[in-house]
Amino acid sequence: MKNQILLFGNTRNSADIRYFCGMPIHDDYFFFTKKGRKCALLSPLEIGRARRTSTLDEIFDFNEVCAAMPGKHQKSYFDAAVYILRKARIRSFAVPKDFPAAMLENFLEEGFDIEICQSQIFPERERKSAFEQAEIAKANDVASACFCLAEEILRSSEIRGDRLIYQGEILTSEFLRTEIEKLSISLGADALDTIAASGIQACDPHEAGSGPVKPNSLIVFDIFPRLRSSGYFGDMTRTFLKGTPNQKQIRLVESVLRAQSRALDMIAEGVDGAKVHSAVVDSFEADGFKTKFSRGHWGGFFHSTGHGLGLEVHEGPSLGTRRCILESGNVVTVEPGLYYREIGGCRIEDNVLVEQGGARMLSKYHYNWVIE
Amino acid sequence: MKNQILLFGNTRNSADIRYFCGMPIHDDYFFFTKKGRKCALLSPLEIGRARRTSTLDEIFDFNEVCAAMPGKHQKSYFDAAVYILRKARIRSFAVPKDFPAAMLENFLEEGFDIEICQSQIFPERERKSAFEQAEIAKANDVASACFCLAEEILRSSEIRGDRLIYQGEILTSEFLRTEIEKLSISLGADALDTIAASGIQACDPHEAGSGPVKPNSLIVFDIFPRLRSSGYFGDMTRTFLKGTPNQKQIRLVESVLRAQSRALDMIAEGVDGAKVHSAVVDSFEADGFKTKFSRGHWGGFFHSTGHGLGLEVHEGPSLGTRRCILESGNVVTVEPGLYYREIGGCRIEDNVLVEQGGARMLSKYHYNWVIE
Repeated sequence: MKNQILLFGNTRNSADIRYFCGMPIHDDYFFFTKKGRKCALLSPLEIGRARRTSTLDEIFDFNEVCAAMPGKHQKSYFDAAVYILRKARIRSFAVPKDFPAAMLENFLEEGFDIEICQSQIFPERERKSAFEQAEIAKANDVASACFCLAEEILRSSEIRGDRLIYQGEILTSEFLRTEIEKLSISLGADALDTIAASGIQACDPHEAGSGPVKPNSLIVFDIFPRLRSSGYFGDMTRTFLKGTPNQKQIRLVESVLRAQSRALDMIAEGVDGAKVHSAVVDSFEADGFKTKFSRGHWGGFFHSTGHGLGLEVHEGPSLGTRRCILESGNVVTVEPGLYYREIGGCRIEDNVLVEQGGARMLSKYHYNWVIE
Repeated sequence: MKNQILLFGNTRNSADIRYFCGMPIHDDYFFFTKKGRKCALLSPLEIGRARRTSTLDEIFDFNEVCAAMPGKHQKSYFDAAVYILRKARIRSFAVPKDFPAAMLENFLEEGFDIEICQSQIFPERERKSAFEQAEIAKANDVASACFCLAEEILRSSEIRGDRLIYQGEILTSEFLRTEIEKLSISLGADALDTIAASGIQACDPHEAGSGPVKPNSLIVFDIFPRLRSSGYFGDMTRTFLKGTPNQKQIRLVESVLRAQSRALDMIAEGVDGAKVHSAVVDSFEADGFKTKFSRGHWGGFFHSTGHGLGLEVHEGPSLGTRRCILESGNVVTVEPGLYYREIGGCRIEDNVLVEQGGARMLSKYHYNWVIE
């Protein structure tokens, strides 16, 4: 790869930029390396905060750069970036795969030599430092606290017909999600798009859930809190049932637990993620749970077994159908699930640090799923 | 522009995709037009939810497309997208300015003729429909409820030395932000990155604030809730002071209010946003408030007067130094501010719908700022 790197965007859209500058910044700016130094071209609006809190080595003030540039015409951030790069004699650089096409076109027109990185521009993001591991574990602790709250609400609810009543009101997915997200915020993390789905809704793995939560039905809680301080995500799923499960539900949940345990046992440095995924598929088939498309819906296990976790909730490496050798320092989720419209949905998700000879759990919450 | 459009990404990163498909979708997928129909290529994971809740005309199931493709090798989403486009005889298309560079390179290598849209790919996003106007107003109502809560907390707090005591504890920016964001969630909106900054922190306009909130000091509350249902943002700022203001603070706040009122009076269809911004700058200068850089910090008014608001919290058109003619249907924020380390920071922000001959307020909250 070329020696210098250029990034453009903000830390909400680009985990690479969050990784590069070490602070949240919500408008689009240029970030680049210059002789190994991490630099940014920022508006006066961001300078003070960036000088205090970022991990950048050098910060260029857009207004000062404009003042130093020749010509009286109004300058854009692009003009200022070109000026800085030329002054530093940087004529070629690499950009990440999500670098904006329009900006690419502009730099090419100015004669820069640009390499588009088709893989990760910071591959080291996939091997987590001790700090990053601890942050992910902290974010998982927030998820665990949220499961505890969800369980408490379900435990205190009363079954009345096909409704649950909590503090005199019909218990809904929206209420559960709101309570979970409020707790998460209190604990210093955003838990956007928490899933609290029951019944047939839980059979759409990305359906957030709405309306009354049903008794005697599987309820999937998928919570991925992002720590505000550092930007790292946790990602955990538990499936609960309030009331009394039937035999089909019991078989389904036990099969998911068995598949997860089998996957967790396999994960170690040097193992192919696709083999872990295959083992989960085999485990479900051995238990008699088939995956198929019928009457307009997928049933069975139709997502991957897991994905990397860090500054993005979905990042590399993956535990799916493609070959992907795990390395020490990877953090991956392990989240098999089974979804049948006639039984309900169940997913159980933890995440682990890949090590030599095994994996270390970074998430911790019990697997009791029936709440009376 | 070319007749067909191709988008790639998710609705968290791309407001264009949110606009195009009418539902939230958090992993990256292809979205495209085909003979005027809005299409997407999705994973089985998203199909059910998309068929129920999106505004798409046609949804391609990745697994089904792969099954229909020739060859036994494993197919990627890119392969499947190329297959669909070729089958539909689409050889050229436009992509938005933030289309990922790596994807652009891949399509070019496959021989597609691509136009990179340097302006907005959906310019109609800047002219809000009645539905969009109502959603923005609703999101502003959430912000108003949050100001009310913040005021209530400040009113119930007691001044003890240079601290505020609320319910027996030292009142902090973090506590205020948490309470505001919890209320926002209860009202159906995410209020990420709420600003609650006092003292010298409020002089960095994008500093969220931390630690004890000071009495007799200006406290900036900038709240931009995003409705979960529709994805539209509100964006409002109020500045409060708990205790007794001094003459400098009074002059500062009054000058900001005057500047805002002047800007609001000017806004109408056909007006240049740069002229509105100039009027604000002139208003501050007439009041004796200068903007300058000294001892490492900017003081005065060093951001733009406003920006468009919709599915992004910052979008076009802008009220800044560049010429930008306002059109009917634009929604813009009006948010002058003054920041001096020796006085404190004050920003007051509302947003309006641009109409013929004037502007209609979409936000509503009083301007009393001293809380005893």
